[in-house]
Amino acid sequence: MELRKSVRPEVLDFKPYTPGLSIDEIRDRYGLNQVIKMASNENPLGTSPVVQEVLARKAGSAFRYAQAGNPALRAALGRFLSVDPEMIVAGNGSDEIIDLLIRIKARPGVDNIVAFCPCFSIYALQAGLCGVELRQAPLGEDMRPDWDGLLALVDEHTALVFVTSPDNPSGYAAPVQELRALQKQLPEQALLVVDEAYIEFADPVENHTVLPLLKNGADLVVLRTFSKMFGLAGLRLGYGIMPAWLADLMLRVRLPFSVNILAEEAGMAVLRDKEFQERTLQVTRQGRTELTRGLEQCNCRVLSSQANFLMFQPPCPADDLFQALLEQGIIIRPLKSYDRPDWLRVSVGNERENRQFLEAVQEVLRGK
Amino acid sequence: MELRKSVRPEVLDFKPYTPGLSIDEIRDRYGLNQVIKMASNENPLGTSPVVQEVLARKAGSAFRYAQAGNPALRAALGRFLSVDPEMIVAGNGSDEIIDLLIRIKARPGVDNIVAFCPCFSIYALQAGLCGVELRQAPLGEDMRPDWDGLLALVDEHTALVFVTSPDNPSGYAAPVQELRALQKQLPEQALLVVDEAYIEFADPVENHTVLPLLKNGADLVVLRTFSKMFGLAGLRLGYGIMPAWLADLMLRVRLPFSVNILAEEAGMAVLRDKEFQERTLQVTRQGRTELTRGLEQCNCRVLSSQANFLMFQPPCPADDLFQALLEQGIIIRPLKSYDRPDWLRVSVGNERENRQFLEAVQEVLRGK
Repeated sequence: MELRKSVRPEVLDFKPYTPGLSIDEIRDRYGLNQVIKMASNENPLGTSPVVQEVLARKAGSAFRYAQAGNPALRAALGRFLSVDPEMIVAGNGSDEIIDLLIRIKARPGVDNIVAFCPCFSIYALQAGLCGVELRQAPLGEDMRPDWDGLLALVDEHTALVFVTSPDNPSGYAAPVQELRALQKQLPEQALLVVDEAYIEFADPVENHTVLPLLKNGADLVVLRTFSKMFGLAGLRLGYGIMPAWLADLMLRVRLPFSVNILAEEAGMAVLRDKEFQERTLQVTRQGRTELTRGLEQCNCRVLSSQANFLMFQPPCPADDLFQALLEQGIIIRPLKSYDRPDWLRVSVGNERENRQFLEAVQEVLRGK
Repeated sequence: MELRKSVRPEVLDFKPYTPGLSIDEIRDRYGLNQVIKMASNENPLGTSPVVQEVLARKAGSAFRYAQAGNPALRAALGRFLSVDPEMIVAGNGSDEIIDLLIRIKARPGVDNIVAFCPCFSIYALQAGLCGVELRQAPLGEDMRPDWDGLLALVDEHTALVFVTSPDNPSGYAAPVQELRALQKQLPEQALLVVDEAYIEFADPVENHTVLPLLKNGADLVVLRTFSKMFGLAGLRLGYGIMPAWLADLMLRVRLPFSVNILAEEAGMAVLRDKEFQERTLQVTRQGRTELTRGLEQCNCRVLSSQANFLMFQPPCPADDLFQALLEQGIIIRPLKSYDRPDWLRVSVGNERENRQFLEAVQEVLRGK
């Protein structure tokens, strides 16, 4: 038993992971023909047909290691974003970039990380694994950021400040001026990381993205992902855009083959697939409007969202609605783990999914 | 510049990664029609046709997150290995499992890790990133393990002992009795990790694998990969087999979606593809014999190998031979980074590749 006792104490605080039911399990349990998943903010159009064709064509290359450092993908992203590829690092999801930022920047037991509460769970998990203190400022009313509250937690040992914008689960996107003001008020050693996983859905993007600040030389990091707008969640592809010196350091410490070869091919293909991008934007923005209107007609409180999901408070216990929808084969997201047990989150689906969801909500609430 | 100075000092020791030339770049640079890559121990048969068919069929699921914790893959591996799935953790390559083992088990600045020198580069890289001391015992003559030398480095702060068997680049596979004896001599808190990335090529496997010891309750970890025998290097899929309490801890701290959805599908498919496994074994073992004979006929010293590659010392400067082969479009592996600059490593190719490699070696050495 000496061996068990010798694990790092930080690790023992981690809760066991309890996976949710899969689509197949829900179908079987409730005897359903069809299950609609609107729980993980995946792309309502599915996988781009162009990507599917590329995956089938490149399947034969699965036995080869990818080129370490992903030069072709970084070059393609550089062109897509009009950013120097030397400022880009791809990761096995942006989760990997978050982990690497903490490992590069924060000294265990000495430095701290600042974020809002609630925040994306990976910030907290990786801080815990790294043995770095996470300080969290509560979000204000309607999940609005309280910048002064955040700044009050920052000190001379703050290594990183994480802000998600648009935020998850609220969908709130901070004005770029506020993020710029925040960055300017941070002490020099504190690096602002803006997680823009959902930025493509903001309307208009330019009022919210901090990428132009970074291009103009500001010291900050922008996180992006192919999991949402680009429909590649299962392939695991995210990236960070950051000052070139930091990207260089990150590429030195990153596992050389962390991005798989098909993710790289799929990523480059979907960057070229403008039609898929445009259709995704159109379906998402239109669905967001329709879902907002429909939920409000059902007497739900809906937070205004710039992302591909909506956070809403039903006029009944949230868990009752969640459970009733599940039994009809519609999976949405309870927000207990985000400390908002009275609220729910629904991902924007396609037209049929949105309609079936709203009909089911109406029916459940009518019965209450 | 305060920001740059605030990165962790451990990180600054990392050398910049210099990617080798890709197949396309070598083709262009030397004006070649064909390039043969025998440098990365990839599968000489390429990607299994069954896997290619599954990848094409499952391409449409790329937009979905995989099930966290990979229950279906773990169950399939459990059946394949006759091991309790609770003892298995899949990773984004076994690289991720190595990283997690260090993060779970070794306290930065306090504990140490023991391995041979040279060893797989990832042990050293991740120890460095974690701020954990790596102690290395030199391999003996002909790269044979010196167990006493290894044990001499182990103390009450040794968290992990890494042994690669079959070893890379020598191909030497330790007898299972020696590994069992090593494990028994370790202090209780020191966990033996046997990296069996190439174990399937050992002949016979049962003389070398420590998996039966683990099944019988020994405290150790076995690392395996789908990159070699199973031909999925580019998809990134490895796994660790370990006591269930350790697997449970690892699943708690692992990024929940680190294994991509197509790697999981491909892994399950290739486990079922017995024909591909048998052909791979046959081609590899036969090619190993033929390459050994051919290189010896060219007056090379060849180390006896239980893996899918050979380490050999040519009767001329190794770099001259490496370069001459490269100019003919044959990429093999120089061993400077393994502290053996007079030696080279060649991966077993298919019949045509092996023949062309041997013909090219003959021709180059004749001209010397």
